[in-house]
Amino acid sequence: MEALKQKILSDGRVLPGNILKVDSFLNHQMDPVLIAGIGRQFANLFADQSISKIMTVEASGIAPAILTGLALGVPVLFAKKTASANMDEETYAATVHSYTRGKDYTVRVSRRYLHAEDRILIIDDFLANGQAVLGLCDLISQAGATLAGAGIVIEKQFQDGGRILRQKGIRVEALAIIKEMSNGQITFA
Amino acid sequence: MEALKQKILSDGRVLPGNILKVDSFLNHQMDPVLIAGIGRQFANLFADQSISKIMTVEASGIAPAILTGLALGVPVLFAKKTASANMDEETYAATVHSYTRGKDYTVRVSRRYLHAEDRILIIDDFLANGQAVLGLCDLISQAGATLAGAGIVIEKQFQDGGRILRQKGIRVEALAIIKEMSNGQITFA
Repeated sequence: MEALKQKILSDGRVLPGNILKVDSFLNHQMDPVLIAGIGRQFANLFADQSISKIMTVEASGIAPAILTGLALGVPVLFAKKTASANMDEETYAATVHSYTRGKDYTVRVSRRYLHAEDRILIIDDFLANGQAVLGLCDLISQAGATLAGAGIVIEKQFQDGGRILRQKGIRVEALAIIKEMSNGQITFA
Repeated sequence: MEALKQKILSDGRVLPGNILKVDSFLNHQMDPVLIAGIGRQFANLFADQSISKIMTVEASGIAPAILTGLALGVPVLFAKKTASANMDEETYAATVHSYTRGKDYTVRVSRRYLHAEDRILIIDDFLANGQAVLGLCDLISQAGATLAGAGIVIEKQFQDGGRILRQKGIRVEALAIIKEMSNGQITFA
C-alpha cells in the first residue's frame, strides 16, 4: 500500500534494536484517514472470504480493526490483556509471550462472542515474532471457529512471525513489508 | 442519540453493582456502523470548536475516538496505561483512580504529540466517576493545551463524574445519559 509506505518513510523513526517507531500515525497518535484507507484495503483483500467477524488485540490493533470492520460491515472483537472486573467469567484464554516487554501475558475473549460458525479475520498493527497472532489463533481454535486469514499493517520480514504463520498455512496479507532496517534506512520487500 | 439508546435497551445487560454491560457492541465486541454514527454525532456537536486533536484512553475509548477523528479530519492520540519499552521517555503522566478495579494507574502520552496550541476534544466510552477524563485533563493542562470539551458515549448520571466535570466548566456531551438502573430496568435522563 503506497500511501502507507510513504508515511513510514516520511514519519517513521528507526531506533536501536530494530525498533520502528510509527507512533506519530499508527499506534499512539493515529491518522484516521490513513487508517480508514488501510481498513478498506484489508476489506478488498478479504472480500471473497465471507468474513463474519474481525478479531484483534488491545490496544493498537483496535483502530485498524474497527475501520476494517466498518468497510466489511462485520463486528469487531478485541482480546483483552488484563482481567477486568466487568468481564464475563466464561472466557477463552491464551498465553502470549511478548519479546518487546520480555514477559508473558494472557489474552482473553468472552465465549459469548466467538462461535464455531464464525469465519475470522485477524487484524493487527505489527507482525514481528507472530506471538500475538498465534495467541488469537489459539482462541479461535478453542471456539472451533475458522481462521480466514490475517491482515497486518506492517510486517518486519527480518523477524520470524511471517514465516511461522505462513508455514502453518495461514494467509497473511501485510500492507507494508520491511525487509531490513540498517543505519536508520528502511528497505521494503 | 436514538440508535444508541435503542441498542442499549435491546443489547445492554444490567448486572449487580450498577454495572451496565455493553460489551456486545461497544467495548469488547464492537459494532462499527453504530460507532461510526457515534463519531459523526460527536463531530457535529463540536464542529464549531476548531478541534485540532482528539484524546482518549486505551483501550475501549479508541474505537469511538478514531471514528470521531475520521469525521472531524483530525489526529487521535490515545493515552497509554502501561509503560512500554517502545514509548518515548519524554511523556506527560497523570495518576487515575479506577473504582472498577479498585486501584490507581498511570496514563501517559508522549510530549511529541501534545502541544500548547492544541484544542483538544476528549472522547471516552463511559463516564461514571470521571477519573479517566480528569487524568486526561491533567495531561492537557501540563502541555498548556486547551480543552474544548468531552464527548461521552454513555454517562451514568447516578455517579458523580458528570457533575464534577461540568462544575469545572467543562462542556460534556453524552449521547446516552442513564438516570438510573434498578431491578435491571434502564431509565434514560
